[in-house]
Amino acid sequence: MGFTFEVEKPDETCSARAGVMRTAHGDIPTPLFAPVGTQATVKTLTPDELIEIGTTLILANTYHLYLRPGADIIARLGGLHQFMGWSGPILTDSGGFQVFSLEGLRRVSEEGVLFRSHIDGSEHFFSPEKTIEIQEKLGADIIMAFDECADPMDYDYNKLALERTHRWAERCLRAHTRTDQALFGILQGGIFPELRRKSAEFLTSLGFPGYAIGGLSVGEPKEKTWETLDITVPLLPTDAPRYLMGVGAPEDLFEGVERGIDLFDCALPTRLARNGAVFTSRGRINLRKAEFAEDSAPIEEVCECYTCRRFSRAYLRHLLKAREILGLRLNTIHNVHFLTNLVRRIRESILDDSFSALKREFLSQYVPVADDTEQRIKGLARRRARSKQEGTR
Amino acid sequence: MGFTFEVEKPDETCSARAGVMRTAHGDIPTPLFAPVGTQATVKTLTPDELIEIGTTLILANTYHLYLRPGADIIARLGGLHQFMGWSGPILTDSGGFQVFSLEGLRRVSEEGVLFRSHIDGSEHFFSPEKTIEIQEKLGADIIMAFDECADPMDYDYNKLALERTHRWAERCLRAHTRTDQALFGILQGGIFPELRRKSAEFLTSLGFPGYAIGGLSVGEPKEKTWETLDITVPLLPTDAPRYLMGVGAPEDLFEGVERGIDLFDCALPTRLARNGAVFTSRGRINLRKAEFAEDSAPIEEVCECYTCRRFSRAYLRHLLKAREILGLRLNTIHNVHFLTNLVRRIRESILDDSFSALKREFLSQYVPVADDTEQRIKGLARRRARSKQEGTR
Repeated sequence: MGFTFEVEKPDETCSARAGVMRTAHGDIPTPLFAPVGTQATVKTLTPDELIEIGTTLILANTYHLYLRPGADIIARLGGLHQFMGWSGPILTDSGGFQVFSLEGLRRVSEEGVLFRSHIDGSEHFFSPEKTIEIQEKLGADIIMAFDECADPMDYDYNKLALERTHRWAERCLRAHTRTDQALFGILQGGIFPELRRKSAEFLTSLGFPGYAIGGLSVGEPKEKTWETLDITVPLLPTDAPRYLMGVGAPEDLFEGVERGIDLFDCALPTRLARNGAVFTSRGRINLRKAEFAEDSAPIEEVCECYTCRRFSRAYLRHLLKAREILGLRLNTIHNVHFLTNLVRRIRESILDDSFSALKREFLSQYVPVADDTEQRIKGLARRRARSKQEGTR
Repeated sequence: MGFTFEVEKPDETCSARAGVMRTAHGDIPTPLFAPVGTQATVKTLTPDELIEIGTTLILANTYHLYLRPGADIIARLGGLHQFMGWSGPILTDSGGFQVFSLEGLRRVSEEGVLFRSHIDGSEHFFSPEKTIEIQEKLGADIIMAFDECADPMDYDYNKLALERTHRWAERCLRAHTRTDQALFGILQGGIFPELRRKSAEFLTSLGFPGYAIGGLSVGEPKEKTWETLDITVPLLPTDAPRYLMGVGAPEDLFEGVERGIDLFDCALPTRLARNGAVFTSRGRINLRKAEFAEDSAPIEEVCECYTCRRFSRAYLRHLLKAREILGLRLNTIHNVHFLTNLVRRIRESILDDSFSALKREFLSQYVPVADDTEQRIKGLARRRARSKQEGTR
């Protein structure tokens, strides 16, 4: 019933590898893209739609579920799997990222973080022990250590935050009692090689069953993201899964896999879908545009998702313009399918030694969207403004 | 390929009957409840979910689809069935009810109605010929005559509107060319027996393949609804289907069937669902209430819908409180299933001579909600205020 990870096949030309994580609720082939179900639902989708898409792991969030409906309620209702009707593997994030992103963040101390609920402004306290306790109540198969999330470009703050994150990681390990859950450590250190090395060294010395790379894809330039992975991943044990948090743009999945990442999550496909933006093999398109008003083709002819098998771009555009919920659903199905299927193809390409060919072929067609970078920079600016204002350094 | 209707079995104790409407897109067993898909989607649901529920006919709306995306676009995309991915029968309402409910209604003349779009305020003109032309472009299996909808309690207005509705009905018949579509007439006359008799006499003399009873369930006291049916239905031919527009509360379906109604439609189940209210055999409950926070039971144990097979009231409440779209979907599935299944049971009871027993049994358990009546009265007050303001009399 315990968690195991096995590398089935390392790529011979790069650090990519195909593997499998085994959990009490089923096997998770890797590399894998996991959709985000923050509030115990991948937005707009049923569990059965996720199964049809081929999803094998979903994320849920400790911060959000602690506040609403509450971890005790979920525990009394049989745990998160039963609560949300998903019998496959679940991963819960610890809530660290959320409490450090809050507008009304109150005070960080060695003990933990005092924060205000975004729902009703009420005060709450998260310590490493508390987030583990909550995650044990929720009962996900993979749970995460409680970490301090700093501006990735701010050396002094990262140096300070890293020490605390390490002490918190030790406390999380000590607090963790459920043997059917795997507790992953989270590396921090921003874009600073020295700090990343320190983080990898310290956390691997504690012996987690898996390692997440946190503090990336939160506003730093992309070349820094990849440089940081280049430095960090080789310091991690090959027999433990590596999880790059918050990454999900198609072009980035290739970069991550190539550097040895096994697991990705991102709210991008679901969030974009609700804005009308959908993935195609040539890049993203926004279905709200007038050019799709009479387009009888599906989003993508070759796509096998429910949306593409059944509906035209013109109909999807109509649903969006008419503010119909079905449009949000159908776009979400397509986007989650697109990333899930892309990583499935990546996995197959590793198994049959064609990863670099697939990467070349995909990237020769796919045009990334510039505004993703803009969004990351805006996100960083917001984060900086907040952390200054709140004096969290 | 033409439309036919056959009564399979008349009830021996009342005017109820079981029958079947045959259309180019399939058979429609009657009595039937048809969910409303105003904008070419039954709100939140896919066609496949409707098939699983057992829906055999859906409504769409001429006014809404004419404005957005436009009838010509739908026609060029292969018609409404192909556009929305629904291969079963469709009925389009003529838009009469909508243009007469508009805030910015401009002018009614013998020729038709000049009105402003609720979307962008642009001016448009609907004549009987125009609404038939639009409905032929949309291509539904059953289309409706263009009628003038009056306050059901206002004799003078109804008298005037009725004459016009009759002349418009003749013009609709003359304008209608597609032989694969059945054009139904719509009786008006408010709650006034004399006017209803006149309407039945005139419209049946024109020989429509089906008759709708309009102008009811729009704010009049319920006893008047049933009195009006008592007077009207016997004046209609037994070999044509009778359609009571806008009725869908469970208790009302029994009253309608008992008086000889074959077809019902109503936005109630989908609208209520999005507000958190769901049907049970004992009456409606609102899942937002705190009492359901830890309720591990489904909405109804005996219900066979997807929602009840898979999810607890506690989870549905959480989704509603967290404003998750999945909650709206799951409630909608349950409510549409509830009414569809109730009318299916009613049909079976007619076939095996147990209709009155079923009615007695159902109504002994089901507690209707008083605020429906309040809503009807509010609707009426709004309608009156509008028609006075706009000088449409």
